[in-house]
Amino acid sequence: MSEIIVPSPADFHVHLRQGKMATLVTPHVRNGGFSLAYVMPNLKPPVTTTAQALAYKAELESIDSSVEYLMTLYLSPDLTPEEVVKAKEAGIAGVKSYPRGVTTNSDGGIESYEMYYPVFEAMQRVDMVLNLHGEVPSDAKTNTHILNAEPKFLTHLHALHKAFPRLRIVLEHATTRAAVDAVKACGPTVACTITAHHLELTVDDWAGQSFNFCKPVAKYPDDREALRQVIRDGHPRFFLGSDSAPHPVHSKSTSTPTQGCAAGIYTSPILLPLVAHLLESFDALDKLEGFVSTFGRCFYRRELSAENTSNVVLRKIDGHVVEGKYGADEESVVPFWAGKEINWKIVTN
Amino acid sequence: MSEIIVPSPADFHVHLRQGKMATLVTPHVRNGGFSLAYVMPNLKPPVTTTAQALAYKAELESIDSSVEYLMTLYLSPDLTPEEVVKAKEAGIAGVKSYPRGVTTNSDGGIESYEMYYPVFEAMQRVDMVLNLHGEVPSDAKTNTHILNAEPKFLTHLHALHKAFPRLRIVLEHATTRAAVDAVKACGPTVACTITAHHLELTVDDWAGQSFNFCKPVAKYPDDREALRQVIRDGHPRFFLGSDSAPHPVHSKSTSTPTQGCAAGIYTSPILLPLVAHLLESFDALDKLEGFVSTFGRCFYRRELSAENTSNVVLRKIDGHVVEGKYGADEESVVPFWAGKEINWKIVTN
Repeated sequence: MSEIIVPSPADFHVHLRQGKMATLVTPHVRNGGFSLAYVMPNLKPPVTTTAQALAYKAELESIDSSVEYLMTLYLSPDLTPEEVVKAKEAGIAGVKSYPRGVTTNSDGGIESYEMYYPVFEAMQRVDMVLNLHGEVPSDAKTNTHILNAEPKFLTHLHALHKAFPRLRIVLEHATTRAAVDAVKACGPTVACTITAHHLELTVDDWAGQSFNFCKPVAKYPDDREALRQVIRDGHPRFFLGSDSAPHPVHSKSTSTPTQGCAAGIYTSPILLPLVAHLLESFDALDKLEGFVSTFGRCFYRRELSAENTSNVVLRKIDGHVVEGKYGADEESVVPFWAGKEINWKIVTN
Repeated sequence: MSEIIVPSPADFHVHLRQGKMATLVTPHVRNGGFSLAYVMPNLKPPVTTTAQALAYKAELESIDSSVEYLMTLYLSPDLTPEEVVKAKEAGIAGVKSYPRGVTTNSDGGIESYEMYYPVFEAMQRVDMVLNLHGEVPSDAKTNTHILNAEPKFLTHLHALHKAFPRLRIVLEHATTRAAVDAVKACGPTVACTITAHHLELTVDDWAGQSFNFCKPVAKYPDDREALRQVIRDGHPRFFLGSDSAPHPVHSKSTSTPTQGCAAGIYTSPILLPLVAHLLESFDALDKLEGFVSTFGRCFYRRELSAENTSNVVLRKIDGHVVEGKYGADEESVVPFWAGKEINWKIVTN
């Protein structure tokens, strides 16, 4: 196969930031082959109201109007059932839940779900999606750490699904076999995003290598195999959410004894070729269209029609070297696989 | 308790390097309260002959003659039973085995032990100690990674102990409950070193924080608790080997997409106060003398007599801030816990 046509790829989990960083990275969504971006709300301050989300959407559209931005709110005690209704009417697609302190700008994250049941009830009624960062905070007393934080979260997933069986839930950026199995065991209202980088990395790759460090951290080879297998299987509730997360190069390349490096891997500018390359590496290239377009669009009710489809053409090549960085100087961002070769290239976007 | 007298502390696993780095770090052994250093052979090139080991010992003595240096050879196919006999006669204490590629300068490490059985036979006969870096190399096909590399090594430990029941073996820098249990299950000829930093760190601490990154990596809270408990128990076959490993600051503080940071944590200059502080934190201060002096000396047959004992006095203080670095500029080394406070201080050394 030397060319693949992919209809309107959709990235169902991406960080587009604010200000100068947003100006740099937002056009990379389209450059990377994607015409839909499901936008995370963990700004400073977080996006907690409809008004904020619409203003943020307008900012992103002013940078690049060729992409459809699906907006989300940040789950916090300030979010009311009334605001959920208002958000739905304004076209906001989902609400993102961050456990406290587990990733970038999650200090205001949640500690227990039951207080949010009235909000989830409203979300279920108006059909908004709940996006779960599925990790519990580390706690030495219970032997909870960053490598079992996701498996230990899955009881919450099952409890929420049971309490709100019609609420559409997405377990974001799954990294473990346990998470894959848990989502498979749920009903049709529960789906799961998988990043590109978690299809490639394991714990060995981020040990001492800050450019491969992200949250959730990449797990064991057996976990990676479970992610690959569910894509090979073409399971329609598992689809791409890149979790592409830009950080200025200095915050990735340097540590001091009191300040480690930022968590996050940046894949937007190379996303579709990278995913094709990775899927081909584990014999799942025939599932590319489902994984990057139709499965997620179906779950999110963003199906394509003849009028709104924009085909992206990928061509097999000998090896295209990934850029070393995007942007200038201290504010530049280093993409995943910088300097490595990818065997697919976008020829029509 | 406001003062503790510790008789001649002994560090049974330390990296003293070569050249300028050796000149910087060798005096830190004594400054850190220790009068015996069991010296690792992973130089460039590795120390594989008696002549090299003696030359290295002379180099270290010329830098600081107040410390007793116990020397080791690097296990490789070049090491013959004849050389083992020669080494023993020259006072060399042990032979260190590194699995291939798992840590600093281990490219020449071993892949299988059976080819070394004639060497081990000679070591058992002349009573030299076998020091094991107890990790198997990562292999995605068998789900072997840096977090289970030590548990997966333990079958080798048991096989070696069974084949050579009188050979004294030390499992170095144990990091897991599985390793502690395995050593406890062995006979009196098998002991285990534990570092200071593995009594404090878990996987969460080195994720994205290169100054806490070492090999073997720190494991889970439950593993740390097993290390702490065996010290609380005062088990005589578990004793300090710091694995203090200096790296120039730039190799720790910076990463590029193609070059991660160096693996190693530097504790020599603060070692005895640090160990006292940590043992006190988990209610094992009464085991300090056994852990840092008598247990290891007994296993290595370096017991103290009235003439060769040099008492080190530690005093409890309000908090002594650890130096930010040792040495000048690019070649400086940042110690573990730089800028943090330690509640014990050496007052007589």
